[in-house]
Amino acid sequence: MRRNIKLKSGERIDELERKGYGIIQREKKFCFGMDAVLLSGYALVKKGEIAVDLGTGTGIIPILLEAKSEGAKFIGVEIQPDMAQMAERSVYMNGLEEKIKIICGDLKEICHETKNQGIKEIKKYMGQIDAVTANPPYIKSGFGLKNPGEPLAIARHELKCTLADVCEAASVLLTQGGRFYMVHRPFRLPEIIHELQSHRLEPKKIKPVYPLIDRQANMILIEAVKDGKAFCRIERPLVIYKELGSYSDEIFDIYGY
Amino acid sequence: MRRNIKLKSGERIDELERKGYGIIQREKKFCFGMDAVLLSGYALVKKGEIAVDLGTGTGIIPILLEAKSEGAKFIGVEIQPDMAQMAERSVYMNGLEEKIKIICGDLKEICHETKNQGIKEIKKYMGQIDAVTANPPYIKSGFGLKNPGEPLAIARHELKCTLADVCEAASVLLTQGGRFYMVHRPFRLPEIIHELQSHRLEPKKIKPVYPLIDRQANMILIEAVKDGKAFCRIERPLVIYKELGSYSDEIFDIYGY
Repeated sequence: MRRNIKLKSGERIDELERKGYGIIQREKKFCFGMDAVLLSGYALVKKGEIAVDLGTGTGIIPILLEAKSEGAKFIGVEIQPDMAQMAERSVYMNGLEEKIKIICGDLKEICHETKNQGIKEIKKYMGQIDAVTANPPYIKSGFGLKNPGEPLAIARHELKCTLADVCEAASVLLTQGGRFYMVHRPFRLPEIIHELQSHRLEPKKIKPVYPLIDRQANMILIEAVKDGKAFCRIERPLVIYKELGSYSDEIFDIYGY
Repeated sequence: MRRNIKLKSGERIDELERKGYGIIQREKKFCFGMDAVLLSGYALVKKGEIAVDLGTGTGIIPILLEAKSEGAKFIGVEIQPDMAQMAERSVYMNGLEEKIKIICGDLKEICHETKNQGIKEIKKYMGQIDAVTANPPYIKSGFGLKNPGEPLAIARHELKCTLADVCEAASVLLTQGGRFYMVHRPFRLPEIIHELQSHRLEPKKIKPVYPLIDRQANMILIEAVKDGKAFCRIERPLVIYKELGSYSDEIFDIYGY
């Protein structure tokens, strides 16, 4: 049963078409993208597991993972206080505060000294997490950057954390055999594989995402396993549009409507 | 105009449907696979360029590349003397001995001391080659191996050379900006990327090959560039069959019939 909450200026509630859940968003820069939805459709969280989402933004991934799985607990880490608060209010609105915890803090501190109480909480789970997800910034810091203080810039550019930071945090959190799910861009695939392997995360599955069947891929979904055996699959392609403006059947399945 | 040649016991001539070319093959173990055909369809050889095929087997790749491109010269290296002789006779049969040179020797010696005259010939081109192709053994030595002396075992298992050896030879041969084309299996993709980068070969394009659109990929085609800038594309998928038993249009285009 959804709780009534008071929206702040510029905010709106979007329906998630899952268990009646909604999400608070604001303008374009405080909105989730299709990347996050595809990642939550891709990630597996088994019954009773604990899942951590690194750089959770609006909280979309923990909320969608809670809706689709029987996981016991979901933790989202977000460095931007206003974003984290908005995510927390979405969790409250959906009545999920027993299952989803939003922590405002820097994911880099998971691997280092911290005074942040929330990060200290997560550190208790080091080496015990079953599934970690991340929809990290795709673009290296410095490339075509206009407003480095903007939430959208922080979400898209490696201003607050690099790919290596995200892999390090995921690796430290995961138990042996635990799974790391990431959505990223193909243009950095060689570097992604290098960073994963440098952090004991063995790439096991790569799913290329194509806007149309006759284009190059514009996203990749990756599953890596902590201390996994080297054996990688390239999964069946995920094609977003049957034709321009018309979603493919698989996208309808993932979105659930 | 094809020359008449005398076939040895067990040999046959298969038509390549390109410029009237044929190829001598023998039993299953002396035959090329679809991998080689896809690789030669994928590899780009520009006008006047020199191309080297590492582990050329029947010579299928240099012959198909000569047929489709305006390259100046094609060199195939093959370690097995009977295979190399058969390839050489195919070259002679097609009247291509001015353009295609088959060398019997160990590709590992390209990077090291050698007494082999043919390999010494190739070494003259070190750092000057524009395009290198390889359809290397996919399987690590020791996995499920029955007859290590057999030509088929040598083609499929890393008995005579490893992935690292192939990448090293390609890198030493290529000029800066030169292109290395390889067909391989997805299960070793992380290792492939690692070996390429370890040998100054930057992966620029990866084309997943699917037997059917709803299966996982069973081959990958890769283009890497010597000392290239890091930026990788995952190209549109190549799907072999529209449905079981019926080739897709793209395969008809590549096969040319």
